[in-house]
Amino acid sequence: MLDATTVVTEVLVPLQASQGDVLSRIQDDALLSASLWANVALAGLSILLFAYMSRGVRASRARLVFGATILIPLVSLSSYLGLLSGLTVGLLEMPAGHALAGEEVLSQWGRYLTWTLSTPLILLALGILADVDRVDLGAVIAADVGMCITGLAAALTTSAVAFRWAFYLVSCAFFAVVLYALLVEWPDDAEAAGTGDIFGTLRVLTVVLWLGYPIVWAVGVEGLALVESTALTSWGYSLLDIGAKYAFAYLLLSWVASNESTVQGAPSPGDAGASAVDD
Amino acid sequence: MLDATTVVTEVLVPLQASQGDVLSRIQDDALLSASLWANVALAGLSILLFAYMSRGVRASRARLVFGATILIPLVSLSSYLGLLSGLTVGLLEMPAGHALAGEEVLSQWGRYLTWTLSTPLILLALGILADVDRVDLGAVIAADVGMCITGLAAALTTSAVAFRWAFYLVSCAFFAVVLYALLVEWPDDAEAAGTGDIFGTLRVLTVVLWLGYPIVWAVGVEGLALVESTALTSWGYSLLDIGAKYAFAYLLLSWVASNESTVQGAPSPGDAGASAVDD
Amino acid sequence: MLDATTVVTEVLVPLQASQGDVLSRIQDDALLSASLWANVALAGLSILLFAYMSRGVRASRARLVFGATILIPLVSLSSYLGLLSGLTVGLLEMPAGHALAGEEVLSQWGRYLTWTLSTPLILLALGILADVDRVDLGAVIAADVGMCITGLAAALTTSAVAFRWAFYLVSCAFFAVVLYALLVEWPDDAEAAGTGDIFGTLRVLTVVLWLGYPIVWAVGVEGLALVESTALTSWGYSLLDIGAKYAFAYLLLSWVASNESTVQGAPSPGDAGASAVDD
Repeated sequence: MLDATTVVTEVLVPLQASQGDVLSRIQDDALLSASLWANVALAGLSILLFAYMSRGVRASRARLVFGATILIPLVSLSSYLGLLSGLTVGLLEMPAGHALAGEEVLSQWGRYLTWTLSTPLILLALGILADVDRVDLGAVIAADVGMCITGLAAALTTSAVAFRWAFYLVSCAFFAVVLYALLVEWPDDAEAAGTGDIFGTLRVLTVVLWLGYPIVWAVGVEGLALVESTALTSWGYSLLDIGAKYAFAYLLLSWVASNESTVQGAPSPGDAGASAVDD
Repeated sequence: MLDATTVVTEVLVPLQASQGDVLSRIQDDALLSASLWANVALAGLSILLFAYMSRGVRASRARLVFGATILIPLVSLSSYLGLLSGLTVGLLEMPAGHALAGEEVLSQWGRYLTWTLSTPLILLALGILADVDRVDLGAVIAADVGMCITGLAAALTTSAVAFRWAFYLVSCAFFAVVLYALLVEWPDDAEAAGTGDIFGTLRVLTVVLWLGYPIVWAVGVEGLALVESTALTSWGYSLLDIGAKYAFAYLLLSWVASNESTVQGAPSPGDAGASAVDD
Repeated sequence: MLDATTVVTEVLVPLQASQGDVLSRIQDDALLSASLWANVALAGLSILLFAYMSRGVRASRARLVFGATILIPLVSLSSYLGLLSGLTVGLLEMPAGHALAGEEVLSQWGRYLTWTLSTPLILLALGILADVDRVDLGAVIAADVGMCITGLAAALTTSAVAFRWAFYLVSCAFFAVVLYALLVEWPDDAEAAGTGDIFGTLRVLTVVLWLGYPIVWAVGVEGLALVESTALTSWGYSLLDIGAKYAFAYLLLSWVASNESTVQGAPSPGDAGASAVDD
């Protein structure tokens, strides 16, 4: 057992230094900082805008969709605060065989962690809109969580480059399950629920942008490092987040605000009846 | 690559020392220890009491509420074991600008982690009682998990005091979503389900006590440090837990035990019918 | 604040060394490696086999069960990649009073972490099959997650042997809640849903194999160390996983493939009707 002073020196000081060190590295890189602050600003503006848009909404189901959707920029705001504060960012030494082998790469691993909370909310919104079977929705969300966690594992693995790509492939396999639901199963449900048009728009937005994330990983500093800049890799994710989170939420809520009666009526034959039966 | 001996000395020994060191610090502070052991004892007694109370309960839905509610003290027991063993407690050096800047503060970060499991169970119990829409319940639980995780981030951030309070504010924003549901939306559902009285009692208990947690954080050692004692801060959380978990669960189960038929009948028009339809 | 070089030397190099060091320890132990690679191979084969078996399945609900069940070997594959890469394995020094006190024990703590995702999927599959109440299913899954997380805590606690066993007992208490549902509550639901036979088979398989996990913990290197070999302890878990995950999933999907109409019809009176009401 070490005495308390040694513990403070050897364990705690470096732990704090790590967070503070990463913080100063981020602050020293203006392009990298901008990729994070831009999202903090847009997430904050989205929350205010959505709260403003919700004023005129009266129907209970439409208000519910507003409440659930506002959580998306709120989770995103938390995610970017984690990255900016250095809490969920680390410096990892890439293993042999990696393009940046032996170098310290700034890994924004907090992104994967918060995606495990934000992407299920997006699927939940799409699932409610298409009125899909609840068990189906639960299974797709489980696949989505599997995708995010194996993405986190790919980012954190430093023992061998082969394991990084093995996790990447497993993450893509989980993604394939999500894509299958979005492209093949849920459109029929949405047609039946009378929300085919808006579901179609949001589905295309989601599928196209979500495909961007594994591409950014593959070409960015964590993957093949074809793009060797940490700041540009970060901008890749940040731009995708702007589309997949704030633009997605805005499109959804604009539609809900103008279609209160469809939201209230179509997905279920009346709330009172549904809540009496659905336990 | 370091050799195995160096790894053991530099990585593992400090890790163990950290857990053991925190353990001895807790054991040396009688007031702090008491705040934890009191909850272990009360959680254990609650489990035994609730098991005893469940003897006479026959209706399937009432038995279900008992089974779900007994998980609340069981999660609480796990949480306090984590704190007592030093597994989920750390010594963190507060950043510049904090009232205790430069000092090591004992952070019971495990509390936030276990609240992500226990508070959804409390909301689940309230939601079943008020028979709220399942999607509504899911969204409120997502906000609640966001509140706990950003609380954890606030506790663990040591790079800058501004980020600690930024996480605190985001956590409060998630809390506002939960409060809105408890105060504005769910009471109507509870009236419709015929459980307005007990829901009203438990709602007041929950809202008042849950408001106490951010206050303890703000005035305690992790926030403004108006209270500079780790032991008193810990007692603040422990007393709130006694009310919000064991007293809450006791009131709920007493009511369920005396109102089996209301529980069985009101929230749904019969289990058989509901389970046949609700998939 | 330490300068960057010191941080790299004291924090990051050991972190990487730890992962790489554990990796080489696993690779040097052929019996231990085999226990992990065997599961990677079987998980991969299961995924291919289940995809092949799904070709002829047309009914939407049967296809849904296939999609959800294929996630079980996919999560298992992720879990074993985490163990093989050294990412989710650590060397922990056992506390005084433990049979291996003072020795470094290879702890495969990632197993507990991935069980929090895979065991809920198994309970979800059983719950759908027996068509249990959704709230009941949610409570049992919450107990299951509690069981896995306290198991993780038991594995990681090194401050005192008493706390290791305290977590073990709490984990067993959560397990008791799960067992009660599987043995007492759900069989009646399965009879009512017309799936009593296959549910009975899978329930026996699950109960018998799941009882094996706490037994392996108790006799293995993390518990009483009656078996002092890390490799044999690992084989214990690996064999249980082969039965509880791949064999379980195979039996379920074989039955579903031959009973499409029962799956489609029995659990709910028609998907269209259910989805229209169940929101």
